[in-house]
Amino acid sequence: MRILVANANTTEAITRLCADAARAAASPGVEIVPGTPRFGPAVISSGLENAIAAHGILDLLAEHAGQVDAVVLAVSLDTALEAARQLMPCPVVGMTEAACFAACMLGNRFGLVTFGGTESYRRLIDSHGLTSRCAGLVGVDFTPQRTLVDPEGAVRAVGEGIARLVAGGADAVVLGGAALAGMEPALREASPVPLLDGITCGVRMAEALARMKPARTRQGPLAPVRDRESLGLSPALSALLRGA
Amino acid sequence: MRILVANANTTEAITRLCADAARAAASPGVEIVPGTPRFGPAVISSGLENAIAAHGILDLLAEHAGQVDAVVLAVSLDTALEAARQLMPCPVVGMTEAACFAACMLGNRFGLVTFGGTESYRRLIDSHGLTSRCAGLVGVDFTPQRTLVDPEGAVRAVGEGIARLVAGGADAVVLGGAALAGMEPALREASPVPLLDGITCGVRMAEALARMKPARTRQGPLAPVRDRESLGLSPALSALLRGA
Amino acid sequence: MRILVANANTTEAITRLCADAARAAASPGVEIVPGTPRFGPAVISSGLENAIAAHGILDLLAEHAGQVDAVVLAVSLDTALEAARQLMPCPVVGMTEAACFAACMLGNRFGLVTFGGTESYRRLIDSHGLTSRCAGLVGVDFTPQRTLVDPEGAVRAVGEGIARLVAGGADAVVLGGAALAGMEPALREASPVPLLDGITCGVRMAEALARMKPARTRQGPLAPVRDRESLGLSPALSALLRGA
Amino acid sequence: MRILVANANTTEAITRLCADAARAAASPGVEIVPGTPRFGPAVISSGLENAIAAHGILDLLAEHAGQVDAVVLAVSLDTALEAARQLMPCPVVGMTEAACFAACMLGNRFGLVTFGGTESYRRLIDSHGLTSRCAGLVGVDFTPQRTLVDPEGAVRAVGEGIARLVAGGADAVVLGGAALAGMEPALREASPVPLLDGITCGVRMAEALARMKPARTRQGPLAPVRDRESLGLSPALSALLRGA
Amino acid sequence: MRILVANANTTEAITRLCADAARAAASPGVEIVPGTPRFGPAVISSGLENAIAAHGILDLLAEHAGQVDAVVLAVSLDTALEAARQLMPCPVVGMTEAACFAACMLGNRFGLVTFGGTESYRRLIDSHGLTSRCAGLVGVDFTPQRTLVDPEGAVRAVGEGIARLVAGGADAVVLGGAALAGMEPALREASPVPLLDGITCGVRMAEALARMKPARTRQGPLAPVRDRESLGLSPALSALLRGA
Amino acid sequence: MRILVANANTTEAITRLCADAARAAASPGVEIVPGTPRFGPAVISSGLENAIAAHGILDLLAEHAGQVDAVVLAVSLDTALEAARQLMPCPVVGMTEAACFAACMLGNRFGLVTFGGTESYRRLIDSHGLTSRCAGLVGVDFTPQRTLVDPEGAVRAVGEGIARLVAGGADAVVLGGAALAGMEPALREASPVPLLDGITCGVRMAEALARMKPARTRQGPLAPVRDRESLGLSPALSALLRGA
Repeated sequence: MRILVANANTTEAITRLCADAARAAASPGVEIVPGTPRFGPAVISSGLENAIAAHGILDLLAEHAGQVDAVVLAVSLDTALEAARQLMPCPVVGMTEAACFAACMLGNRFGLVTFGGTESYRRLIDSHGLTSRCAGLVGVDFTPQRTLVDPEGAVRAVGEGIARLVAGGADAVVLGGAALAGMEPALREASPVPLLDGITCGVRMAEALARMKPARTRQGPLAPVRDRESLGLSPALSALLRGA
Repeated sequence: MRILVANANTTEAITRLCADAARAAASPGVEIVPGTPRFGPAVISSGLENAIAAHGILDLLAEHAGQVDAVVLAVSLDTALEAARQLMPCPVVGMTEAACFAACMLGNRFGLVTFGGTESYRRLIDSHGLTSRCAGLVGVDFTPQRTLVDPEGAVRAVGEGIARLVAGGADAVVLGGAALAGMEPALREASPVPLLDGITCGVRMAEALARMKPARTRQGPLAPVRDRESLGLSPALSALLRGA
Repeated sequence: MRILVANANTTEAITRLCADAARAAASPGVEIVPGTPRFGPAVISSGLENAIAAHGILDLLAEHAGQVDAVVLAVSLDTALEAARQLMPCPVVGMTEAACFAACMLGNRFGLVTFGGTESYRRLIDSHGLTSRCAGLVGVDFTPQRTLVDPEGAVRAVGEGIARLVAGGADAVVLGGAALAGMEPALREASPVPLLDGITCGVRMAEALARMKPARTRQGPLAPVRDRESLGLSPALSALLRGA
Repeated sequence: MRILVANANTTEAITRLCADAARAAASPGVEIVPGTPRFGPAVISSGLENAIAAHGILDLLAEHAGQVDAVVLAVSLDTALEAARQLMPCPVVGMTEAACFAACMLGNRFGLVTFGGTESYRRLIDSHGLTSRCAGLVGVDFTPQRTLVDPEGAVRAVGEGIARLVAGGADAVVLGGAALAGMEPALREASPVPLLDGITCGVRMAEALARMKPARTRQGPLAPVRDRESLGLSPALSALLRGA
Repeated sequence: MRILVANANTTEAITRLCADAARAAASPGVEIVPGTPRFGPAVISSGLENAIAAHGILDLLAEHAGQVDAVVLAVSLDTALEAARQLMPCPVVGMTEAACFAACMLGNRFGLVTFGGTESYRRLIDSHGLTSRCAGLVGVDFTPQRTLVDPEGAVRAVGEGIARLVAGGADAVVLGGAALAGMEPALREASPVPLLDGITCGVRMAEALARMKPARTRQGPLAPVRDRESLGLSPALSALLRGA
Repeated sequence: MRILVANANTTEAITRLCADAARAAASPGVEIVPGTPRFGPAVISSGLENAIAAHGILDLLAEHAGQVDAVVLAVSLDTALEAARQLMPCPVVGMTEAACFAACMLGNRFGLVTFGGTESYRRLIDSHGLTSRCAGLVGVDFTPQRTLVDPEGAVRAVGEGIARLVAGGADAVVLGGAALAGMEPALREASPVPLLDGITCGVRMAEALARMKPARTRQGPLAPVRDRESLGLSPALSALLRGA
């Protein structure tokens, strides 16, 4: 089984980190294929960049259509998730989506902790229809940069965020964003609830779905398009729009 | 890995069918442990029986606590799901819950088709917080009994139900209830959308969660109880209430 | 008129307290019949115990079916309320349900104050469909035990909780749980809004419904079951499942 | 106990019918006081008339403030219900509100049947926060006038509406509007679910609340006003606005 | 174009202030027609007064029906908005409604700041269906009276309220109530988000709608009434109820 | 005042049609600036194409930033609306958004009629937070192509769709999509409710907002980005991401 781990940022270093985490989570015999878009924001930090990045990640996926068994969107905002499902003939899973659904199967309500603002996560969870399952979101006042020089401070700050979420009713906590991905082992012991890492959950869910070999949706809003013309898109993407 | 496939009905034949389906879905090396309650309704067909059956399935689970790596509730109404999570030290997954979450990762909205009434499924989906992801429910006018003498008629009837759900906006369809479990292969080719079988999804999700080895919730409403007294319960269940 | 005041805990002392409160609230000529389950948790303090207790209270109710004119579930989580409605030929009212609905008829939004955690009440109110009518829940840091040695401190603490709820928009406040039941007279004068006691409201609503002599639901999910087989249940309960 | 049955229409004949129905429902010793507004629409048939009628019924209530123990708003749209609660020192119950809450204590979801359009009822139920408890509304194509010449046809038509609501998941059905009030006995036998009459439920609930002698809300949006000036209102109403 | 700026309070001074603000906002060639009710509360400060004021503002509007091209309800609670739409042959816009909708077209979520309590605004926004677009409400502890003697203090207090709303996720802020109307210029520079003034937005939206010359709704709950009898209403209002 | 009418399709003919309609709706002195993206789908007909088109329209808008006073997104799915608001220093209005909000100011609930499927509109309305204001959506079985040869048939089919929406409770109807844009005059007389055209409403709302000269959001999720790096984007777009 081949799983494409598709970054939506154009920063290769993030792709490598995600691919390493994916390999650590994957079952034996699963090949992780890393992918980085050809164009777009270096690091998505706003809704504007996320909207621009949709094109880039779909352009990337089009290159791999038919050559992988599943896709994990290795980007915290699950960029272009539904469009990716319409584009690709295989299952596509978002890393935050996967972590949220896994959290829902471990407890009644989950929390999400991240660095910085939480508004984009609030809306993402709402778009997944999970608002009623979410006990709260906590944005820790820390940055990925500061984590490099003060890893213990980062763990302490995130741990406090987890404690606040649990006090607010969370039975499980999603670690939101790439910056928190590697922290799960350091946080695990002190945490009173299970912690969910997006890449790990994304790979697990992608494997589970791919093994079911689900039929492709052939009707309705997610059915593949055909005979659609376009201008200035890549050969791979424009071919898929034509249904070629 | 050992997965308990716990029926909530007291009919052994249903347990055997579910265990066979679970074995077919499980990864190599996963042992399926079937379980049937010692008391309760023969076949749950109403909310009243479902409420009574909660005790029976928790009594059954208590016997296996600490001896299995995950539990799949092999009952269409996910009987006592949250209480089971509080009781057991390992992940517990409901078969309909698992199918609904898997469907959510394949499309935007899912439908559910079953034999008979749909009201109990409507409420189950609502209790899972997935109402906004559900495009509709269809109750096919057929019975498990009639399926035995007219299997082709059953497939045709369910197929028509699937078509109605797709016309109503479903991108994926959950096959609700044990009666439809074996039908997925017969329905697959004609279906314009992927079909989700509860036992298959339950086993896949249970494996995925168990492999993450999630910490147990130690705080909040799902934390294990301790020092709780009781009257007339089984030794295993009363011991777990005492926190023994 | 005979009203069964059915405890879901197996502690007789709680049943006696509830029965006394019910007698104080009942109209002249109404007989209060106390009932305690034969098995189950001594005192329900978690969702796990509540799920187990459903069987016990339904077992208890089955003994009284046809012999009482109404039932009040004398348990703060309205244990097995809907199943009880399906089981019994007479109206069944939950004590928290009754207090919440009464509060809705006195003001636009109500609050609920209780000892300890509020999550189970939050979900109960949601299951009653009243979330939009609920201005907030306050869990006072006090215990029934401490109330015995410091009754004035308990009144003061609950009074502060009521003040917080009113500041948050509550026009009426439900006293949640048996522990607060007797406190209404002590709290009344200082409270800026009406206070609702579950047993009092439960008895009043049970009387009001019983006097209407509502027909029994004969169709749909709450219709009585018939011809249902079971294993290891009490003669009374298994007979009602058979429709005898 | 004295209960004001306050019509919001200015048609005395409707007031008399409602008062007669209220007397039939009231407990022994309860005095029913009928009331008709001095001005306003003859028969409320639209949102516009309902908005105008709010003044008239509040003007009427002001005349009785302090002289009755409870009020039943004998008007299908529960006209000015919340304002009436703020105005009056005693409990105020709307007839449709009371029937809906009573229905909620008899089953999980209720339906409502009425003559003509259902949109105003849909919104009323929504304003009561009960949308999730409502299985449907059916507007029967019949008029109060036609009922006089074809009472059997009316019963048949309403009965068919009830059957549709039950098929759609209603466990109980509210009879909406004065025109259906007297029909409950004729409909009862054929109905597969209990039927709720607004005046009967209103009187029952008003009695239940009045017997609790709830304290008046003294804080928040429903607290009595004081020192409010006005122009051209009746002496009784303007006095209450001044807090006199 | 003639726009009626209809106050729902009977205080002429408020009408004059609103009319002045409306003239400042109106396009060249638009005539602002001020209107004050003949009866009702001097200043609406509660739900009770708002319910009474509905009659007064509808009575006022009836005098102008057919003589103006649009109406702005110059009252913070959008008193009798829907009834006014049913009554009048031209567009009717509420000042708070208009500001909220304008805010929705400038950002994802808006906040609202006002003097005093926020509960009535919370419910108004909910009745407009905009709860999911509202990031929060802040009631500043200030009064219109104190504003006269300490205008700088008022601006500072409202500015702090705006800052709190923005911290809570508001992309734009509605200035609620007449008391804040004139403050927009003083607040603008310090505010990190756009501010919406009700009268300004009301006039702008009324112009926009009137220029479309929308057909009048002829069917459904907002269709004009006809042949409706009434008692004691003004000649103009009773004539419109008769459809004259 | 200059208003950019920005198409999200790369088909110039659609841009011209929209610009002509915009000019017809604009006030005297308003200059309409048409714009077509340099790349992307020819005609957006699916979620996939809409996700790709977001980049194209943002690329187009970046060329005009600072040179126009407002933007109307001339595309039925309001493509990249929020990202456009974050990108641009002036108000941005979506044509369907504008029509829906205008409809909300003309009646309580609106309907939407379009050619073909309605699912994408359902979700768009939900994303605008207006689901509770929407009475229904009707997809007429007609195509833009067929309209050219059978314009009367198209008007008849859309008229029937409008009638269905009104029967379902719509007080106003939005004409969804460019294909229905020109039809409003032909439909108006027969329609029992007002009809809203997206381009007309978009221009009216853009003018109304631009005349208020609202401050730009400087804080929160819609604040302009700065110092963001990117790869392979146009000079104008990458410059705006850098905050240049």
